[in-house]
Amino acid sequence: MIYLDNAATTKPDGESLDRAMQYLKDDYYNPSALYAEGYNIQLELRRTREKLLSYVCDKEEYRLNFTSCGTEADNQAIFGAGRRGNVVTTLGEHSAVFSAVNELKQRGVEVRFASLNSDGSVNRESLLSLVDEKTSLVSVIHVGNETGAVNDINGLAKAVKGKNAYAVFHSDGVQAFGKIPYKLSKDIDLYSVSAHKIGGIKGVGALFRKKNLIIKPHIYGGGQEGGARSGTENVFGITNFGFAAEKKFAAVEVDFERISGMRSLLWERLDKELFTIISPEKIISDGKIVASPYILTVGVNGVRGETIMHEADDAGLIIGTGSACASNEKKRFSRVILACGVSESLADGILRISFSPQNTVEECAKAAEILNKIVRRRKEIVD
Amino acid sequence: MIYLDNAATTKPDGESLDRAMQYLKDDYYNPSALYAEGYNIQLELRRTREKLLSYVCDKEEYRLNFTSCGTEADNQAIFGAGRRGNVVTTLGEHSAVFSAVNELKQRGVEVRFASLNSDGSVNRESLLSLVDEKTSLVSVIHVGNETGAVNDINGLAKAVKGKNAYAVFHSDGVQAFGKIPYKLSKDIDLYSVSAHKIGGIKGVGALFRKKNLIIKPHIYGGGQEGGARSGTENVFGITNFGFAAEKKFAAVEVDFERISGMRSLLWERLDKELFTIISPEKIISDGKIVASPYILTVGVNGVRGETIMHEADDAGLIIGTGSACASNEKKRFSRVILACGVSESLADGILRISFSPQNTVEECAKAAEILNKIVRRRKEIVD
Repeated sequence: MIYLDNAATTKPDGESLDRAMQYLKDDYYNPSALYAEGYNIQLELRRTREKLLSYVCDKEEYRLNFTSCGTEADNQAIFGAGRRGNVVTTLGEHSAVFSAVNELKQRGVEVRFASLNSDGSVNRESLLSLVDEKTSLVSVIHVGNETGAVNDINGLAKAVKGKNAYAVFHSDGVQAFGKIPYKLSKDIDLYSVSAHKIGGIKGVGALFRKKNLIIKPHIYGGGQEGGARSGTENVFGITNFGFAAEKKFAAVEVDFERISGMRSLLWERLDKELFTIISPEKIISDGKIVASPYILTVGVNGVRGETIMHEADDAGLIIGTGSACASNEKKRFSRVILACGVSESLADGILRISFSPQNTVEECAKAAEILNKIVRRRKEIVD
Repeated sequence: MIYLDNAATTKPDGESLDRAMQYLKDDYYNPSALYAEGYNIQLELRRTREKLLSYVCDKEEYRLNFTSCGTEADNQAIFGAGRRGNVVTTLGEHSAVFSAVNELKQRGVEVRFASLNSDGSVNRESLLSLVDEKTSLVSVIHVGNETGAVNDINGLAKAVKGKNAYAVFHSDGVQAFGKIPYKLSKDIDLYSVSAHKIGGIKGVGALFRKKNLIIKPHIYGGGQEGGARSGTENVFGITNFGFAAEKKFAAVEVDFERISGMRSLLWERLDKELFTIISPEKIISDGKIVASPYILTVGVNGVRGETIMHEADDAGLIIGTGSACASNEKKRFSRVILACGVSESLADGILRISFSPQNTVEECAKAAEILNKIVRRRKEIVD
């Protein structure tokens, strides 16, 4: 099978699994236990925290608490910081932010949505126009999970703080962390990441927090994670996340180049009569990274994405039709894709092709061939 | 090392790990993905859900959603059902319930605490006297994590419903599930369990819910778990939980007998001049299970529990001093132990010895010997 749905989840990295296995087989103690065996695990968790922080921010300025997934990290940020006045976000958010702010609305907080540009990035003017002195929280996805468009979160956060210095700025970094090279500026207060999108296992995420920021926890109990997130720590998953991130960050620029090449090749080989690109076509524009090479979203007019996906699966190619997390919403069209201004007819035929360093150029060439063949055949039937 | 802190966490069962490993190595797909490989994993999650339900309740009457730990399951129950009027709970709750209801109090819900009997079980009259027509939620721990006292939750729930048929009844079953034989009666609306206390891995729990009960989710997002709990499912951890539970429940009665024997032996061998039992001494009273054999809590007058624990660790014996989850609270005395009416001097010397089927009679005899020796030596120094 050719697996090109890596934005949904990645295959856990074997070496990182092996390294973390000791926490299932030998060092299985509770890290809150006061004896040496427990305390040593607490120290290992601390090392993992510091390592993860060091990859994308000034670790003197930030701390992080682990969570059970990116969704929980997003919820902690939204419910912890969006407690009054209004919350400003975008039409391009992952369901974890989108559903959480909708729940905030139920609780009486005003929620404002900034519009998107056609490539899925947020419209800067729209976003800034919504921020005022009553804004408690601004949340902007770093790399859009449906199109791969990169938002300039450092620039946006700076502009937001220019309008309201007290607004908390959060970003969902799940599709960015370990995939594109960046450092968070001091204007980013909260940042969510997930392990299973970069070769870690499902069930682990983290919320990065500016040290001077105090927000309420989302899960209350024994006071683990310095009180920020209670519940016995998932030691295996957390240490595994650290090992997987170590590998990803060591190769983040090399992988970025290699995957950019694979994405270009795949897009090049797709029949342009049949496929329309939804993602930003270029990865770099004006010297800035404007798209993640890890995601290539295309649309087909008049053939359902799901049909193509199932036929591709039968032909040995696994791709997505959009956000796996949105599949439970059981809506025909993606709200994010429609917000990019895509017509309903094209939005019906969306395919999300997403890469990992384990993929090869040969797989990408083969994938294009399979997709061209399926859509050509379908089109003949349809026409 | 002799490991007798199994109420804090258990060593993951090797066979269950091996069986679940396929979900890390081969079937790593996102269970929300619509292609066959993803859907098959969704089916496996459903089988695991049904299996877990079948062990302790009528699976036609209940459903469950997985969570990241027992603490999250407790939080979902408390924040989901305790939304108005008053909430009645006990002074013997785990921090996951205790801290959550304290947060509810901050949000304007009245919280009432029932007193405990000297063995750590809830005082029935006290509990029932607190329930009135404004009670939205009653939460009573099934097996107390600090003393092992068993609360007759079916009986209590029936009496609660007799006073207020609309009150939701929740129980934290983390130290009961897979350890004592029982079935939930139809009066139990919500029930929390955890994987890592019965040979599963850390990072997985579940909330059992009566089918006719609608409560708000605690984590919002892609709508996984039928909308009850969003976030990509921890497939490895969940399937592993199912396998570990399968083994535990197959042997639940045999283990209960064996562990009752080990607990009796250990207590018998402890020097009664030095140690006072805090847990109920008998497991069965009047034909009812009144204590979990998995937990034996004792107190030593005039020697700090932490001191004994560290010396035991050096001598090759791992025990707890109370709830591992409470160690983060950094309070000298356990609030639960004090609520049992234990004096501060004795409460300072609490040891929680907790068993698993992997322990042997020889280990228990040796443990008693080590503890007697440490306390005798300390007492000589102190006296």
